[in-house]
Amino acid sequence: MKKLHIIGLGLLGGSFALAAKSKFPEISISGTDASEKNLQDALNLGIIQEAKDQPDADVDIVILATPADTLGDLLLKTLDQVGEETLVFDVGSTKAKLCKLVADHPKRKQYLAAHPIAGTEYSGPKAAFADLLTRKVLIICDLEKTDLQLKEKAYELFDALNIKLRFMDPEEHDRHLAFVSHLSHVSSFMLGKTVLQKMEDEKNIFDMAGSGFASTARLAKSSPAMWAPILTENKDNILSALDGYISNLTAFREKIAANDGAGLSEEMTEINKIREILDLEK
Amino acid sequence: MKKLHIIGLGLLGGSFALAAKSKFPEISISGTDASEKNLQDALNLGIIQEAKDQPDADVDIVILATPADTLGDLLLKTLDQVGEETLVFDVGSTKAKLCKLVADHPKRKQYLAAHPIAGTEYSGPKAAFADLLTRKVLIICDLEKTDLQLKEKAYELFDALNIKLRFMDPEEHDRHLAFVSHLSHVSSFMLGKTVLQKMEDEKNIFDMAGSGFASTARLAKSSPAMWAPILTENKDNILSALDGYISNLTAFREKIAANDGAGLSEEMTEINKIREILDLEK
Repeated sequence: MKKLHIIGLGLLGGSFALAAKSKFPEISISGTDASEKNLQDALNLGIIQEAKDQPDADVDIVILATPADTLGDLLLKTLDQVGEETLVFDVGSTKAKLCKLVADHPKRKQYLAAHPIAGTEYSGPKAAFADLLTRKVLIICDLEKTDLQLKEKAYELFDALNIKLRFMDPEEHDRHLAFVSHLSHVSSFMLGKTVLQKMEDEKNIFDMAGSGFASTARLAKSSPAMWAPILTENKDNILSALDGYISNLTAFREKIAANDGAGLSEEMTEINKIREILDLEK
Repeated sequence: MKKLHIIGLGLLGGSFALAAKSKFPEISISGTDASEKNLQDALNLGIIQEAKDQPDADVDIVILATPADTLGDLLLKTLDQVGEETLVFDVGSTKAKLCKLVADHPKRKQYLAAHPIAGTEYSGPKAAFADLLTRKVLIICDLEKTDLQLKEKAYELFDALNIKLRFMDPEEHDRHLAFVSHLSHVSSFMLGKTVLQKMEDEKNIFDMAGSGFASTARLAKSSPAMWAPILTENKDNILSALDGYISNLTAFREKIAANDGAGLSEEMTEINKIREILDLEK
């Protein structure tokens, strides 16, 4: 692992760089960002050692860490640029479209479709930190389509960072993520909106917000530049998750309206099952 | 502050007891709980020193910390039992009905309507801890209706516990809490439900759940025994909050369906305002 190039130096790209540098002190990391300010911040913060518009032909790994709707064009362009010994992986939150796009690409075997389940509600190079990825899950899709030798380069990096690998097909990935990640972001944004609207009428409402609100609305701080593309890229799955959510909310609303305390209690008791699952995740 | 009696020895009642004991080591705390197991746990954990079905006539403060729908009858009964020098306060999440119920009670001035904005997703005596209330906000409603001397007893306790006081009328309290607390719980429960339903079809979906899901679904671990009564007690306000939420979700869904990336981005940018407010809360 000698040379790394990272395109998109935000939370994820920046954190990969910081972690790689700490595990492989000799590594040389170049990179670029569509934002001149982000690029400058990344240089100042030591996230990359050199700004470069495109990867050198002999780079070991190129990481694509830009918004979901830009990854398709970027992946095609990058595959054209890199030499035969380079592995390219992206860290986007949607995988089906990308995998379809490059399915028959002559350099398909140089691409690894990856998605680390790691993030915070903050974005940009300043939000990056070396430990973000430590012991997190990274999902790899269509693993068998990537060259065996090149895959080893990625594994070397992932192992050094203590990343736990999971494997599934890209459609399954997108379907699941709509429920366990994308839906959470939508629910959080809409919670923030609903309370902000109320605040227009009533001042000081946030004085009363406790840790519960902070927890459920935290993701409403997330970057629209990152999330708008995810929502449209994974549209069908997210609409299906959202429809289930709205329909559950509507049915629950009816139980409240009917003063059905027993029904509410029964339903919430059933949902409490999530305790085991959430506590297992810790 | 010599004698305290606590009815309901769960998370809030238990935490009040532990905090009071640590600040006033000489204090004698008695209490009771509808659950024999909770009562025994509370004795074993040192939350109370003595189990008593009802408060002695010379107790300084009685704290009512039972589910929202039981507080009305309990408050009336307790006011009948206590002597003239006793202050009774409840810690329920809804205040309007209670304040209305005792508005013309001969012992109205011995009651203080209180609601500490403090809690976790856990419940019962074992979930209680002495620091739960430290530097939390406690809302007092209809302050002027409580006797001046008796109020001082509560202030002595609240000050010792480093509790920050806020004052508002009970209707305003219930309206605000529906938005900044009760709605968060409903959204979280329904998020949990939606994902649990999906899990029935697809195994291992939780492998992919990151910190975002854990944060937004955390409240789905909350106690149905506590929350079902809150939802029906504060029905009108919660329905109004929930209708706003569902309508925001539905409109946002339409933007996703229409691939309106710019509209989604604009809306989320607007909601990002919540950053300032949430970060302020820290």
